Amino acid sequence: MVCPFVGRAWTVLQEKNIPYQYIEVNPYHKPDSLLKLNPRGLVPTLQYDNKPLYESTVICEFLEEAYPDHGPKLLSEDPYERARTRIWTDYCTSRIIPAFHRFLQFQPMSDTEGLEEVRQEFLGHLKEFTKEMDSEGPYFSGKDIGLIDLVVAPWAIRLWVFDHYKNGLNIPEGGEDSAVWSRFNKRLKAIEERPSVRETTSEKEKYLSIYQKYADDKAQSELAKATRKGRGVP
Amino acid sequence: MVCPFVGRAWTVLQEKNIPYQYIEVNPYHKPDSLLKLNPRGLVPTLQYDNKPLYESTVICEFLEEAYPDHGPKLLSEDPYERARTRIWTDYCTSRIIPAFHRFLQFQPMSDTEGLEEVRQEFLGHLKEFTKEMDSEGPYFSGKDIGLIDLVVAPWAIRLWVFDHYKNGLNIPEGGEDSAVWSRFNKRLKAIEERPSVRETTSEKEKYLSIYQKYADDKAQSELAKATRKGRGVP
Repeated sequence: MVCPFVGRAWTVLQEKNIPYQYIEVNPYHKPDSLLKLNPRGLVPTLQYDNKPLYESTVICEFLEEAYPDHGPKLLSEDPYERARTRIWTDYCTSRIIPAFHRFLQFQPMSDTEGLEEVRQEFLGHLKEFTKEMDSEGPYFSGKDIGLIDLVVAPWAIRLWVFDHYKNGLNIPEGGEDSAVWSRFNKRLKAIEERPSVRETTSEKEKYLSIYQKYADDKAQSELAKATRKGRGVP
Repeated sequence: MVCPFVGRAWTVLQEKNIPYQYIEVNPYHKPDSLLKLNPRGLVPTLQYDNKPLYESTVICEFLEEAYPDHGPKLLSEDPYERARTRIWTDYCTSRIIPAFHRFLQFQPMSDTEGLEEVRQEFLGHLKEFTKEMDSEGPYFSGKDIGLIDLVVAPWAIRLWVFDHYKNGLNIPEGGEDSAVWSRFNKRLKAIEERPSVRETTSEKEKYLSIYQKYADDKAQSELAKATRKGRGVP
């Protein structure tokens, strides 16, 4: 089962056709080989030229810079557009993912008002993000996929968890924001069908027992614990 | 009085000798001209070619990329070194600054054990960061200043607040980590004496009434409120 933060780096490796060796680890029993590279033991950790790199968005940007001649260009050459995608990549990590987890881990399910509040908070962040997208799409910056799409993809393809565990994501149909939400849906479909994303995603059944723990707010990952404390992505 | 996040972008503008117009705003009464550029109203906000940019570290990297022929090169050409400085820049924002504020805003002062705990947490982060520095220094990557030094500088030059309000920062003298701390002190001195830093810093007296509010945990900035909730940099 692939951790979504690993998924970010993995799709970039696939997208750019960079040769790599994938080593799976048990996050609750971290092997010494990982801890030697990254004392905090977080994944993804990349070994490059015998040197370690970590932090998923840093790894993604590194792969783009270290392999400029591989595969599609995933970051614009224009400094302003580069900066804009960095702002919204950061928005994904600092706003969307924490709201995703506050919604997913929300308890108790009998508190329908509280559930609606975390749902609306999450939808609000998705809407703000989507408004910044190219109006035609399907990707964030237009017809070509970019780093920012791959950085968001692992959570985009997990949106089914809200239908499965939390009475629905309930994206509005029609209404004043219908143009934004149809842009959102178009992009989601493009991401789900992207080969690099499909190749790095397990079948839904493999995720069920893991996400059940999140949905019951009993997961013990660093992110689950940070969410319980009201903190952001660790 | 300069907000430390603004200080980051301002020192980069000075360092690279980029022409700019500096507009001060009252963060508690945000002018429309700011809100039009950045609906969240956070500073720094940069207007470039009639387009807005925000998030201090994004602005710093943007200035480096948009003005490659200005002043010193603040980011290595080597992808690995670039990635490494991004990891530790993020460490500053996600670890050092929140710990700085947990220490500064700690209450009550009669709880000496609790105060020692937040002090040690902060010193621990400074130590971990300093270990990653070039062993000779004085700057993070060696004899030349880089973006990462300027991104950390605004907090480095505010370390006096702990001596003033919180019974001392108490950097260990001698002991097993003495090499790390002497590297730390050497770098701190180099940053404090850097013209771009001196030119963008007000006199200490101007900060006293503001930091008194932080030290009493009564400040109402977004960062002060986030710290009270146990959250990170907003």
